[in-house]
Amino acid sequence: MTLYFGSDNMAGVCPAILKAIEAANAGDAMSYGGDAWTARLTSRMVELFEHEVAVFPVATGSAANALSLALISPPWGAIYCHPESHVMVDECGGPELQTGGAKLVPIPGAGAKMDAAALAALLVNAGKGVPHHVKPSAVTLTQATEAGTVYTVAEIKALTGVAHKYGLPVHMDGSRFGNALVRLGCSPADMTWRAGVDVLSFGATKNGALAAEAIVVFDPARAANLPYIRKRAGHLFSKHRYLSAQLLAYLDDELWLRNARHANAMAARLAEGLGNLPGVRLIDPVEANELFADLPEPLVGALAAQGFDFYRWGSPTPATHRMVTAWNTDLAVVDLVLDAARAAAMLNRG
Amino acid sequence: MTLYFGSDNMAGVCPAILKAIEAANAGDAMSYGGDAWTARLTSRMVELFEHEVAVFPVATGSAANALSLALISPPWGAIYCHPESHVMVDECGGPELQTGGAKLVPIPGAGAKMDAAALAALLVNAGKGVPHHVKPSAVTLTQATEAGTVYTVAEIKALTGVAHKYGLPVHMDGSRFGNALVRLGCSPADMTWRAGVDVLSFGATKNGALAAEAIVVFDPARAANLPYIRKRAGHLFSKHRYLSAQLLAYLDDELWLRNARHANAMAARLAEGLGNLPGVRLIDPVEANELFADLPEPLVGALAAQGFDFYRWGSPTPATHRMVTAWNTDLAVVDLVLDAARAAAMLNRG
Amino acid sequence: MTLYFGSDNMAGVCPAILKAIEAANAGDAMSYGGDAWTARLTSRMVELFEHEVAVFPVATGSAANALSLALISPPWGAIYCHPESHVMVDECGGPELQTGGAKLVPIPGAGAKMDAAALAALLVNAGKGVPHHVKPSAVTLTQATEAGTVYTVAEIKALTGVAHKYGLPVHMDGSRFGNALVRLGCSPADMTWRAGVDVLSFGATKNGALAAEAIVVFDPARAANLPYIRKRAGHLFSKHRYLSAQLLAYLDDELWLRNARHANAMAARLAEGLGNLPGVRLIDPVEANELFADLPEPLVGALAAQGFDFYRWGSPTPATHRMVTAWNTDLAVVDLVLDAARAAAMLNRG
Amino acid sequence: MTLYFGSDNMAGVCPAILKAIEAANAGDAMSYGGDAWTARLTSRMVELFEHEVAVFPVATGSAANALSLALISPPWGAIYCHPESHVMVDECGGPELQTGGAKLVPIPGAGAKMDAAALAALLVNAGKGVPHHVKPSAVTLTQATEAGTVYTVAEIKALTGVAHKYGLPVHMDGSRFGNALVRLGCSPADMTWRAGVDVLSFGATKNGALAAEAIVVFDPARAANLPYIRKRAGHLFSKHRYLSAQLLAYLDDELWLRNARHANAMAARLAEGLGNLPGVRLIDPVEANELFADLPEPLVGALAAQGFDFYRWGSPTPATHRMVTAWNTDLAVVDLVLDAARAAAMLNRG
Repeated sequence: MTLYFGSDNMAGVCPAILKAIEAANAGDAMSYGGDAWTARLTSRMVELFEHEVAVFPVATGSAANALSLALISPPWGAIYCHPESHVMVDECGGPELQTGGAKLVPIPGAGAKMDAAALAALLVNAGKGVPHHVKPSAVTLTQATEAGTVYTVAEIKALTGVAHKYGLPVHMDGSRFGNALVRLGCSPADMTWRAGVDVLSFGATKNGALAAEAIVVFDPARAANLPYIRKRAGHLFSKHRYLSAQLLAYLDDELWLRNARHANAMAARLAEGLGNLPGVRLIDPVEANELFADLPEPLVGALAAQGFDFYRWGSPTPATHRMVTAWNTDLAVVDLVLDAARAAAMLNRG
Repeated sequence: MTLYFGSDNMAGVCPAILKAIEAANAGDAMSYGGDAWTARLTSRMVELFEHEVAVFPVATGSAANALSLALISPPWGAIYCHPESHVMVDECGGPELQTGGAKLVPIPGAGAKMDAAALAALLVNAGKGVPHHVKPSAVTLTQATEAGTVYTVAEIKALTGVAHKYGLPVHMDGSRFGNALVRLGCSPADMTWRAGVDVLSFGATKNGALAAEAIVVFDPARAANLPYIRKRAGHLFSKHRYLSAQLLAYLDDELWLRNARHANAMAARLAEGLGNLPGVRLIDPVEANELFADLPEPLVGALAAQGFDFYRWGSPTPATHRMVTAWNTDLAVVDLVLDAARAAAMLNRG
Repeated sequence: MTLYFGSDNMAGVCPAILKAIEAANAGDAMSYGGDAWTARLTSRMVELFEHEVAVFPVATGSAANALSLALISPPWGAIYCHPESHVMVDECGGPELQTGGAKLVPIPGAGAKMDAAALAALLVNAGKGVPHHVKPSAVTLTQATEAGTVYTVAEIKALTGVAHKYGLPVHMDGSRFGNALVRLGCSPADMTWRAGVDVLSFGATKNGALAAEAIVVFDPARAANLPYIRKRAGHLFSKHRYLSAQLLAYLDDELWLRNARHANAMAARLAEGLGNLPGVRLIDPVEANELFADLPEPLVGALAAQGFDFYRWGSPTPATHRMVTAWNTDLAVVDLVLDAARAAAMLNRG
Repeated sequence: MTLYFGSDNMAGVCPAILKAIEAANAGDAMSYGGDAWTARLTSRMVELFEHEVAVFPVATGSAANALSLALISPPWGAIYCHPESHVMVDECGGPELQTGGAKLVPIPGAGAKMDAAALAALLVNAGKGVPHHVKPSAVTLTQATEAGTVYTVAEIKALTGVAHKYGLPVHMDGSRFGNALVRLGCSPADMTWRAGVDVLSFGATKNGALAAEAIVVFDPARAANLPYIRKRAGHLFSKHRYLSAQLLAYLDDELWLRNARHANAMAARLAEGLGNLPGVRLIDPVEANELFADLPEPLVGALAAQGFDFYRWGSPTPATHRMVTAWNTDLAVVDLVLDAARAAAMLNRG
């Protein structure tokens, strides 16, 4: 029996969301977003973000990111991101496709967070209207990050401050938006537009949806081209109501926050338990639902032997492994991991 | 109350498919297609088509088409299609995006079917290695067509024969594949690879799925680049099992054929009933689940007044309207349409 | 010995232009357009067009056209052009590449001129903000046309009037701008911005330059992205002065107008002489430097035997041939053509 | 009076090349490469490289590079290059445009040379057929490099060895090919195909041509798509003979080697003279025609005061400046630089 810590996308669909899909199946409805669920979703998002928004549901996080970037960068643009970010590493050139060739430019920083000072240092010299170089056009940050850390609101503001100083709009890849939000304990508005974010990929899939993300544009006027960008990319659903219904259920009764809190708590428990074992080194603070740690080989072997499935990440060290928890991670299974790990550690020591 | 004849994508999800999604939700599973449902789907498709295939599920028909064309045409390619085809008219330049700029070249023909002789006449003079012109690269035909007609197997063979003579692979947009198949009464193999089709967009959404199509490549070796093409386009689902589960349920117990037969029968009944009324002219033979007819204004008004929803198509004449039936179209509602139409006709005459 | 009537790009470089290149070779100069010749060129163009302009020299007509269209159409745009236009037929998908996938939509019309009424009829129904269809974005017309005809100023205004009514900017492919201008006898301003043209490909290569065209943007503010568009396409010359020097010499002493008048006169002479022969039918009025005519086979054979080189065009009839005259076409050679043609005609008759 | 050390593209055209353009102007000729000069060029290149080649002249180095990369990388490809390379920094995303979105991945190394071990370390883990990541597809190295250094043949072989081990073709950006070649004193074959280079941008513009580069493909079968790639990019010249004539004259009588030797010698003289002055630090060995050095402010001021024009490079230190010599750099002017620099140094010391 496999016990999954490989990724939060290995988890299934949260029952309430499945039920909402079923409920949305009563009768016919207008296609392509002309349905009641989609209308309701926009109102709900306005309420959630305490701000006017334009909302564009899509089915994958890669789509949400690439279409967002296509909205805010020209084909000859430079888009600044962390070198470990999903858009840079894990989307097979999706942003390049959708933007028509924009260049992702890496801005380093600890814990997979871009360093605002590094961004500022680069922008002060970049471009200046010389057409030999790609034109500084956008910044994209990931919240929570690929390292399982979470930008503080102040850190977001530092980045957006630099970006806006140079006229660059800011995108947030929020494929784990909920996990970050419950960590910070602030409002969605605080973590986005109030902190200077212009466009958001609001993720739901990893946190319990079947396949639903929303591109949220805080200045609806800026979204005028997004209907075309989404349609030509093949990301406009005909039976659109099922995307919207998922997102509505995700937000109802704070389901998304409860899911995220659970996943984070499970990761924290893993971190606490494993972090104390000899030979284990946590790479970054575990602030969301991902844990990166150097693990001794015997420990890895012992966990694998019991069916625990997780990735050898191989970076920053060859011993680095990643464990991801999800909305449905079982506390008992987490404790089994910890028991097995402790046993392995003891054996190894003895 | 609205009674939908606007499009088959206004219909909801077939209960058996919804149930299959639910069933697929038992526990965790490998993501990105590494799951058991996806493995089963490939076997099922091999069996269905009596041929080796590579299968790539996606969520929209526009994606299936554009990604298929990106597989078989270079950016400097000419892709031959009917001027009324979905790829030409209704995908906002999706094929151009995914292929990197290929040109869709219209080949006319009655009933939205490309004329093989017209294709041959064009190809005999096209390209010839002169780089001033886009290079003849692919042919794409729609089955059933956008006019609600169905290519016979002989007609498909005539087109693929011309295409293959010039070395061009052939794509079939099968967003209404089931409706065409039950019309012809042949096997999936007969209508595809045995008739010379190389790549197929196998549609399920319009015929009862939530959002599921499959790109089927009959020579798996030719599909080597498709994983990259799909991923960079944002069309690789993380919770991939739910796409595969939909398609499996669609094929189980001949659900897809039953759905298609029903939709076709409802359209035939509409055609028969309306076609006999004074002032009504069917544009094309009704061979699948779409009906195009010139309707007198009073009749249109009378139907609208009763809540029947359908499109003024406006082509070939301003009086042309489209009605589409679906897997769930109610026989009683069809008969209500016909009653209302007959009443309007009588009133008008009297 | 070959006697060239194949195309005006088979002619060499006009001596005055070659001399200007040589003169520009005195010493070093700033690269990438920071040179004195380029500065002078802009002033000269302002004077020529009696209007503020932004000027971007490039080396090929295909570049001038595709970059112009990339400036005025988004990737999801529809660009309206004549089905026989160079951008549609002879640039191997260049506009699709540079625009990122825009769709060229054919607007028919006699003599390779778009019909304004046909454009209006299409635009009244096109797009309307529905993202399923490409968005109406630009119109491009060719002056002189590919059929050797010339739009009147009134015809240009009719097209730009329709285009502007729907908010579409208008591009003119002026690869034979000079030939058209001397035909109309109006000013460059009259044939462009005063007639509603927004962006112009101002061609010089076919009319005596080595390789020089200029993109002329009548509203310089609209040209803000063109430096990037040109550079990323590889069309920004490092030794830029030699492009500008060609264009300056082209304009000096009305060289361009004298060249164009000569080429047109030679074509008119051919048309008059051939047009009277039995079996010869001029396809379109010969208004610039191209002649399209159905020629009897014996006549074609007789001309070929004497070394006259020209193309079998094959359209609209298989007997259609094209002859193009240039700035350097020798009157004596034209008369040799006519003598040979008359002889062949007589022989044939006798 | 300005004395140019800003770039070798500020130099004019070598007289012999201008003369060749003039000579090519005798009479009409077939366009688009069907001329005698172009035929001769291919033979000449075969002879020069002692190998079958396909040759495609274009007018700019950015075009040669981007079209070469479009030939050898798919849109979802990773192309490995040095972070300071021209393709990465100075072409405004040209490779991204022409490849349809490939990603340039930086491989570091001293002296702007990619480190073969770093490339190997990256490739051992890259891709592996997982479609989440761009697919390793090509390597491009610059010879001479952007730092004015020159790869040894052994260094080239080390890189191509790694690349070929993973099936990646190798492109060489030879915009300063001549300068590198005379430095190494080997044959063109030794520095290219014998060392594992598959496609070459053979530069002539910086070393004395007006605007002429050649894409040289050592396996002509691999070049089958290049005619389309070049044409759609707008880089196929109609009056093509003038490109070929430039390249022929460039190769005649070893003009290119003499030009390169002169430019290199002038840079070496500058390096020797400046390198000995107090406060001057050469950044990299001066192996071609570019010198990068940290210069004391008073020295910079003194040189500027005398009209010497060169760039503050600003990297690796704020005091870094670049001087470039060319085929026409005057020995006397170089000595003036050195005199002025020595005077400034003395003054400063005193």
